[in-house]
Amino acid sequence: MPRPLRIAQVAPPFERVPPRAYGGTERIVHGLVTELDRRGHEVTTFASADSVVPGRHIETVPEALRPSGYTGDSLPYMQLTVHEVLARQSEFDLIHSHLEWISLLLARATTVPVVTTFHGRLDLPWADALFRDPPRGLVAISQNQADTHPELPWQAVVHNGLKLDGSPFGKRRGEHLCFVGRVAQEKGIVEAIEIAQLAGRPLKIAAKVAPGGPERAYYDAVFEPALKAAGSSVEYLGELEQPDRDLLFAESFASLMPGSWPEPFGLVAIESLACGTPVIARRIGALPEIIRDGIDGFFGDDSTAMAFKVDRVADLDRAAIRESVLERFSVEQMTDRYEAVFATMLDRTGADELDGDDRDEGGDDGDGPEPQRIAIPIRREDRLGATARG
Amino acid sequence: MPRPLRIAQVAPPFERVPPRAYGGTERIVHGLVTELDRRGHEVTTFASADSVVPGRHIETVPEALRPSGYTGDSLPYMQLTVHEVLARQSEFDLIHSHLEWISLLLARATTVPVVTTFHGRLDLPWADALFRDPPRGLVAISQNQADTHPELPWQAVVHNGLKLDGSPFGKRRGEHLCFVGRVAQEKGIVEAIEIAQLAGRPLKIAAKVAPGGPERAYYDAVFEPALKAAGSSVEYLGELEQPDRDLLFAESFASLMPGSWPEPFGLVAIESLACGTPVIARRIGALPEIIRDGIDGFFGDDSTAMAFKVDRVADLDRAAIRESVLERFSVEQMTDRYEAVFATMLDRTGADELDGDDRDEGGDDGDGPEPQRIAIPIRREDRLGATARG
Repeated sequence: MPRPLRIAQVAPPFERVPPRAYGGTERIVHGLVTELDRRGHEVTTFASADSVVPGRHIETVPEALRPSGYTGDSLPYMQLTVHEVLARQSEFDLIHSHLEWISLLLARATTVPVVTTFHGRLDLPWADALFRDPPRGLVAISQNQADTHPELPWQAVVHNGLKLDGSPFGKRRGEHLCFVGRVAQEKGIVEAIEIAQLAGRPLKIAAKVAPGGPERAYYDAVFEPALKAAGSSVEYLGELEQPDRDLLFAESFASLMPGSWPEPFGLVAIESLACGTPVIARRIGALPEIIRDGIDGFFGDDSTAMAFKVDRVADLDRAAIRESVLERFSVEQMTDRYEAVFATMLDRTGADELDGDDRDEGGDDGDGPEPQRIAIPIRREDRLGATARG
Repeated sequence: MPRPLRIAQVAPPFERVPPRAYGGTERIVHGLVTELDRRGHEVTTFASADSVVPGRHIETVPEALRPSGYTGDSLPYMQLTVHEVLARQSEFDLIHSHLEWISLLLARATTVPVVTTFHGRLDLPWADALFRDPPRGLVAISQNQADTHPELPWQAVVHNGLKLDGSPFGKRRGEHLCFVGRVAQEKGIVEAIEIAQLAGRPLKIAAKVAPGGPERAYYDAVFEPALKAAGSSVEYLGELEQPDRDLLFAESFASLMPGSWPEPFGLVAIESLACGTPVIARRIGALPEIIRDGIDGFFGDDSTAMAFKVDRVADLDRAAIRESVLERFSVEQMTDRYEAVFATMLDRTGADELDGDDRDEGGDDGDGPEPQRIAIPIRREDRLGATARG
């Protein structure tokens, strides 16, 4: 239905699109690019040269920076990506940036409409200053993320979507739990070991560890000793690529997300649920928008509380869990919503042109459609969840 | 003579203006702000809240970031500074940015003329990409720095200037050498120890060490063992504040700059020369624009070559060294040159306005003055130096 657009999709240069393993933003960009291309849009993806995307590909760096060992400052390469986009800005109807904060400067430096999706947390010391005089086109990936800045003129909340219908389901399921993520304190990896031991179940861990810096120090000082102390019931598998990660989910009794930071979305949750595997989690960030308490898994405030719920997972309907998450978090759903955002941005831009460059947006004479808030309605029962199953 | 301007001087948020100890960019900004204010301009300085500047002060962060322990990514706080400037852009005739690369995005996001002084090295992997479609107003702090990108439309080369007339001179001078800088491989701190030992003279070291990261690792793995091995003839004084640093220069027989990286300017050299203390250096970066070989000191290609020159320092005319550097690298000289750059930028902007927004800058009808290249003429004898004194 919507007319084909010339869209720039702008990925950060740190991981390839799609990523080989870790890299949430780049997975989302890949899914979105693929689906927009399939729908007939003329998509140009700005990404590292080792990326593989349909449509046109503008190479920002010769190789994705993190896998190639770059640990330096993000500024120059993020800015380089912005400059590559600016050099070609006239070729696009719309620019969709995934560059986090510097997207806001991109939006100020171009006259092309910019949609900015934030993938990271927004409750950071510099956020209020950078969000002063916000541009249009801001998209949050969860209501929780948007709510950290309720004063912003959010264009929409668009939940992430993944191609999940190929996720394995109905495999031989073990009695063990699993943890998928990073070796980092805020991801709750040591709590996962605690929960498994309290619940009396084995645990398999698939987690990325940073080559250096505080995360590596955490690995050495905290995680490895905890792993050793736990003995043979806990197995550390290193970082797994996606098919192996999916298999791990599919074969696990439940997955654990005991992180203690405001997870802006939580892709691990939808990946686990897509395999029909319930999630036991702390009630943090956007997880209550994904995990329906008592249906898709359970929330608990500490390791004891989460361990207490583990055995109850046996009663959950795994086929229904899978079915619901495939419907709620598909690439198609996400793309529908972004297409609506793009349409609003472009209609509005047209209206602006008709009205001249007047900054005073009050007293609109009604020529153009009003900006639309395309927040996803979250049903009350989803948000609150059911604390007990009847 | 030039009319008073409303000038924004934009400092990075990492050190206060002026810095307590290390912080070359911030020292230059402080000198320039002070002199522009004295000359009647309406100066607004964007800098950390603990900065102390004449004129108006817009506080970008509550406290300079490095001294307060921040070791994170530079992007958000550099961008925050850009946003603070953009929020007030209409209040200025001209913006003078010292934010390195991100200045280029500031220039693209505002209609106010932007002068950008680069203080760091420019031969970095991302440089060519960021310098595509360069804005006007680019200033290098040395010809050597400018020469890394000869294709750029440099507005000027403006050597740094410091208030040097208060530098101590004629104090009781010792037989020891000194090294002032950072504990870092590229600064040649271990070579300084070597040179002193080869020359048979004591060495006093005043050097900053980073709290963490590769520089701290270098301190532990390389510098400290070298210091221990050198014994009592080498004294490490830590990081000194400016008056103590000046006293160290004034009391030293010569100072050593055996660094092996393209130093874009080399403030240490002019500080030493201002105390009448000759510099023994490697021929790197901008140093040949500052140190006249055989007059202000000597160049050598390795420790042996530099050590060989040490005793010859006795024959140099220290009063003449001091006099020349005070004339060549004063704040007044630097400010004169920046005022000329500002005038060119504003004349030219006026011409652009008369001619409309035409991007085609060829075929100018002569209404406005041509952009002027205000490179400092470097006399042949200064550039080549005299390799032997007669």
